[in-house]
Amino acid sequence: MEIRTTAGYRLFITLKVDSNRWDSIKKESEIAVDSVVGAGGDVKKVELQEDGIIFLHVDASNLNHQKGIISALQTLENVEVHAAIDGVEAIHNGGKIDVVSRLKLEDGDDLAMAYTPGVGRVSSMIANDPSRVWDLTGRRNAVAVLSNGTAVLGLGDIGPEAAMPVMEGKAVLFHEFAGIAAYPICVNATTADELVAIGKALEPTFGGINLEDIGAPICFEVEKRMREELSIPVFHDDQHGTAVVTLAAMINACKVVGKDLSSVRVVMLGAGAAGVACAKLLLSAGVGDVTVCDRIGIIHESRSDLKGEKLWLAQNSNRNGISGSIEDALKGADAFMGLSGPNLIEPAWLEQMALDAIVFAMANPVPEIMPELIPSNVKVIATGRSDYPNQINNVLVFPGFFRGLLDARAHKITNEMKLAAARALAGVIEEDQLGTENIIPSAFDRNVSVVVAKAVREIAER
Amino acid sequence: MEIRTTAGYRLFITLKVDSNRWDSIKKESEIAVDSVVGAGGDVKKVELQEDGIIFLHVDASNLNHQKGIISALQTLENVEVHAAIDGVEAIHNGGKIDVVSRLKLEDGDDLAMAYTPGVGRVSSMIANDPSRVWDLTGRRNAVAVLSNGTAVLGLGDIGPEAAMPVMEGKAVLFHEFAGIAAYPICVNATTADELVAIGKALEPTFGGINLEDIGAPICFEVEKRMREELSIPVFHDDQHGTAVVTLAAMINACKVVGKDLSSVRVVMLGAGAAGVACAKLLLSAGVGDVTVCDRIGIIHESRSDLKGEKLWLAQNSNRNGISGSIEDALKGADAFMGLSGPNLIEPAWLEQMALDAIVFAMANPVPEIMPELIPSNVKVIATGRSDYPNQINNVLVFPGFFRGLLDARAHKITNEMKLAAARALAGVIEEDQLGTENIIPSAFDRNVSVVVAKAVREIAER
Repeated sequence: MEIRTTAGYRLFITLKVDSNRWDSIKKESEIAVDSVVGAGGDVKKVELQEDGIIFLHVDASNLNHQKGIISALQTLENVEVHAAIDGVEAIHNGGKIDVVSRLKLEDGDDLAMAYTPGVGRVSSMIANDPSRVWDLTGRRNAVAVLSNGTAVLGLGDIGPEAAMPVMEGKAVLFHEFAGIAAYPICVNATTADELVAIGKALEPTFGGINLEDIGAPICFEVEKRMREELSIPVFHDDQHGTAVVTLAAMINACKVVGKDLSSVRVVMLGAGAAGVACAKLLLSAGVGDVTVCDRIGIIHESRSDLKGEKLWLAQNSNRNGISGSIEDALKGADAFMGLSGPNLIEPAWLEQMALDAIVFAMANPVPEIMPELIPSNVKVIATGRSDYPNQINNVLVFPGFFRGLLDARAHKITNEMKLAAARALAGVIEEDQLGTENIIPSAFDRNVSVVVAKAVREIAER
Repeated sequence: MEIRTTAGYRLFITLKVDSNRWDSIKKESEIAVDSVVGAGGDVKKVELQEDGIIFLHVDASNLNHQKGIISALQTLENVEVHAAIDGVEAIHNGGKIDVVSRLKLEDGDDLAMAYTPGVGRVSSMIANDPSRVWDLTGRRNAVAVLSNGTAVLGLGDIGPEAAMPVMEGKAVLFHEFAGIAAYPICVNATTADELVAIGKALEPTFGGINLEDIGAPICFEVEKRMREELSIPVFHDDQHGTAVVTLAAMINACKVVGKDLSSVRVVMLGAGAAGVACAKLLLSAGVGDVTVCDRIGIIHESRSDLKGEKLWLAQNSNRNGISGSIEDALKGADAFMGLSGPNLIEPAWLEQMALDAIVFAMANPVPEIMPELIPSNVKVIATGRSDYPNQINNVLVFPGFFRGLLDARAHKITNEMKLAAARALAGVIEEDQLGTENIIPSAFDRNVSVVVAKAVREIAER
């Protein structure tokens, strides 16, 4: 079974036809498109130029598939592959964000107002009344997207430079979905002390800090200490963004299968930052029970290797105290949540889950189990991917969540805010629109960030 | 003598005329304009609405003058002052910059390319080849404008929050004049150790760091250590931006008065960050001699209170070893440069300078001596203000300087680059265009940053 094509492997292809006649270009472009489709590629755009140039945008499944498509084109007669470049690489050239002026600057008067001498008076206003930093600067709309690059996507500890494309992407999403000015900041820092010091130093510039892709267990300490020591909200998206969107999806999935949230038993695979936060939020939302598995197996109180957050999980989840493997945990379970890695779950294990089971296989880009392999006792399937139904994606949470925090000038993030955001997000889909393939809104539903922001803001303003 | 009006004290005034007739609105607006002009205000814009609303943009000289103008309007019959707000404050509302996406984001395909799964591949490309951070992220065009707010304009140690409007202003200028994405970053940090640690932590995100408004003497240590410990260029604008623009102006001023740079004796007042850097750059450019005065008087080798940069100045400037006050220093001097505070220089002292003297009174916003008070033996006068001829402003330097550094992917800033930038900047004005009121280009001369960037880039690429 082949993985579906995705724009994440898009090719920008330029072909040259050895002819000046329009008819022949059109014909050759059809042949080229046929060849691409024959090789499994998904043609997204065809553009012809009278000088014999054909531009194609083609989605592939992976790097080998990209090569296969190019090879297929190279075998064509009369068509020369002039260039075939990786479209994703191309659009990242020069980075994805810019820092621009909100004011016009055309003459000396503009300069006198935006800069000296005018700006000195504005600085004085803030010096005289520090609260005015919230209206006379961009702080009220500024969020740091702060990472040390130690746990980037599924790539692990790739360092701050390599993490930057992800942080820039986050900044793009913050602006697109919530109008927030997000600064991607990738830092040289490996210890919790260093990261906390950086957060404290940066505080005057920002209205909030979004921690991103910082590895466990340091991320827990960093977030806890920053929350204690800073007076602006600090949100570790890998933990809380994931937890909120997952809870929202679970609320709706339970409705779809007709089970009560308080009665379902959820089995989770993955006890990193996301897994721990999801388990905690599900428990605080009143889920029947949560059983978490790590690489060793089920987390339970008799295990002697646990400390920190995992020890907390042993004491507060898995109420029946079961032990064993993930396979054992799944027997009779109502829901599975994967926050781990690719292809770790066997279809046979899922067959032993309860009837009308729920499976969220959220490892990215390759899920714990591909949806096609999931047995029929599972009624609702969700992944982290955009090319399957029910994409569980943090972008549904962090823009609106921070919009609400900033608008309320919140100092802290509370569990109540996370619960309210999850419930609000779940509520974006009307009851009569819910279905096995519609438990969570689309990332492009513009209503999402508004609704999430409102929920967070209302709690913050209390 | 009154200080001139400036857009730095612009008022946005809304008047309401008690009439629905257009003729009467026009007449009352004329009366209002007359009243403003009578009170010394400078009317920049008049806008009439048929419903009896009159909008005025009026420049004042200072806060008291603003009040006087409003009072003058309030005495008018038939005209009600509906609102009179500080225009500078108004345009700063919400801050001056935004962080925006360079890509369109309209559908799931865009998301798959800019974010997951596409972005993961881009991060992997950098992880596999770290040098690719320079083409696949915004780093090659990103500069941190980093301040702790301890020496902001003439306002002193007002802290990081109050410094933010200045840093945002700098970011606006970076983008406007050189297309650079500049991040204003104001930090909680008072010691050199803290500031250096922040610079080192932030390094992976930026192509260069512009230190700003960090007080002496810490600024010297911070810059020196960052230059040693970071592999991206670090530029303290208050020092080097000021030094470069001042040297450029001095090169041209000497041409105008027909003196050779190597023969002029320059007296400086102010031995802070800017003064020290200016003195050093002038000396390395081959200026005849530089005598620097601080609050105590002339800096010379017999003084026992000197250390650090001032000790260096005592040993390397003031070749004739003169002692005494600034007044003593000015006797027979060819040029005066003020990098100190308002109204510190008496006209009588300048009368004792050489014939065809040069005076740069650069304290901002109020110079060491107002140009109107400068005696006639002084032939060339420059200030830091936009409302007099010959405005010596760092904006002529830092955008182009960083453009050159970034384009060359320079690791370090050298003295040679500063000299080249100053000479290139001076050369922007054609010899036959030079004059007593034209020694330095306008901030809005779009050629400036291009020429400065080219000069810096050429040195960096050697």
